[in-house]
Amino acid sequence: MNPYSKYKQGLLNDSQQQRSAIRSGAYTGTTSGLAPGFVQGNVVILPAAYADDFYKFCHQNPTPCPLISVSEAGDPSMPALGEDLDIRFDVPEYLVFRDGARAETLTDLESVWRDDLVTFVLGCSFSFEDALQSAGIPVRNVDSCTNVSMYRTNLPTQAVGPFSGELVVTMRPFTPQNAIRAIQITTRLPKAHGAPVHLGSPELIGIRDLSTPEFGDPVEIYEGEIPVYWGCGVTTQVALEGAKLPFAITHMPGKMIITELLNEELSVL
Amino acid sequence: MNPYSKYKQGLLNDSQQQRSAIRSGAYTGTTSGLAPGFVQGNVVILPAAYADDFYKFCHQNPTPCPLISVSEAGDPSMPALGEDLDIRFDVPEYLVFRDGARAETLTDLESVWRDDLVTFVLGCSFSFEDALQSAGIPVRNVDSCTNVSMYRTNLPTQAVGPFSGELVVTMRPFTPQNAIRAIQITTRLPKAHGAPVHLGSPELIGIRDLSTPEFGDPVEIYEGEIPVYWGCGVTTQVALEGAKLPFAITHMPGKMIITELLNEELSVL
Repeated sequence: MNPYSKYKQGLLNDSQQQRSAIRSGAYTGTTSGLAPGFVQGNVVILPAAYADDFYKFCHQNPTPCPLISVSEAGDPSMPALGEDLDIRFDVPEYLVFRDGARAETLTDLESVWRDDLVTFVLGCSFSFEDALQSAGIPVRNVDSCTNVSMYRTNLPTQAVGPFSGELVVTMRPFTPQNAIRAIQITTRLPKAHGAPVHLGSPELIGIRDLSTPEFGDPVEIYEGEIPVYWGCGVTTQVALEGAKLPFAITHMPGKMIITELLNEELSVL
Repeated sequence: MNPYSKYKQGLLNDSQQQRSAIRSGAYTGTTSGLAPGFVQGNVVILPAAYADDFYKFCHQNPTPCPLISVSEAGDPSMPALGEDLDIRFDVPEYLVFRDGARAETLTDLESVWRDDLVTFVLGCSFSFEDALQSAGIPVRNVDSCTNVSMYRTNLPTQAVGPFSGELVVTMRPFTPQNAIRAIQITTRLPKAHGAPVHLGSPELIGIRDLSTPEFGDPVEIYEGEIPVYWGCGVTTQVALEGAKLPFAITHMPGKMIITELLNEELSVL
């Protein structure tokens, strides 16, 4: 065992403990800040009949949909993401879509699991928020203990089969110097949405009012700060609404799957 | 000889031909766009008595003053930058400082050369402009055939001995998407000023009016573009004025030394 593996083994307790608290139902809250250093993921669960198109949709839209892992149909385990991970129990809260509408929320999938369900796990901005904070760059939504601000834009995704819709972005305000550093740091993490898709004026990408995000919470932008925008996994939820599949499941925004991958394992530079 | 060396040998004709036209006095204009792919440099020539302090000034201020090469005292050759390079003749036009004041311009240094002169060559933004254009990103000052806009800021340099003064920056306007790409691309080139030092609002770094640059030419900023600012080698000329050395020489802005290094040789990523 090399020193790195040992380091990871030591840390793993944290990832496994958090997941185990979630699995038991003891924890149903947001996962922001839990198991620091570990990759968290967006979850999309679909009938196998739609899986190939969704796979291609992720491939065509890697910025909002950075694909980390896909399960076998009907298999709730994802050993590449966690030795004992069970996608039916390990997310704090799930959102069920029926005919494209948000139908019900569940804290486990026992009652709705089917043998044809395929699970997609996509990278999430919690990984780059961790990297930004490690570099001494304050992240407003983390410091104010609120959900990040998310907005529908007028930027189209590349449509594949039934999946299409506008790009959803997250926004974080930074000083200009920190915005430059944030671009450098997130460039290293293409599997966590990578570099920003836009900075500055919200109107240029079809956002009318930064103080009223469509998802998440508003955050304050201080004098002299510049808003910076990243692709967001909620893009998949907008695509699911548009696709009007008879049945699909996602995580509830902010309540992600905690994996055993380290954020540093996703870093390309 | 590996294929890379062969490639470089083929290209070298261009660098050597340009330098030879300059040396003969046939060309005394700006060097922007000449010998594409080759590193061009800012030139600072000082009496040896000030060389150690200037060396440290560059080391302490690597963004405006990315040191590429230093000569031996009195030796006008710089073999690391070009086999036959002679700094007394190979710059199109020189600017002589006397007691800190811009005194005269010369097309060669034969009449003023001294045995105690040390030459510093610093990286220049022409290298990253080349990289930006190779990546399909338009550079306004190149496309409009004007000198880049340069501004004094209120950002101090780290003072060393007699050398101090404010940072001078260049400004180039980009769409937000191209600004993000430009940050990524210039990050790879720390020896050509590296990543920007600022973006957006000029007032935040003490620039009052973007339409009246202190050096170079104004450029138009189109609707929806964002100004991006990089450290600039003219910072050394401001430091030379402040230092009031009895004697010093620089290149005339925009009329650089053309070396035989490839821009790609400076790239760290």
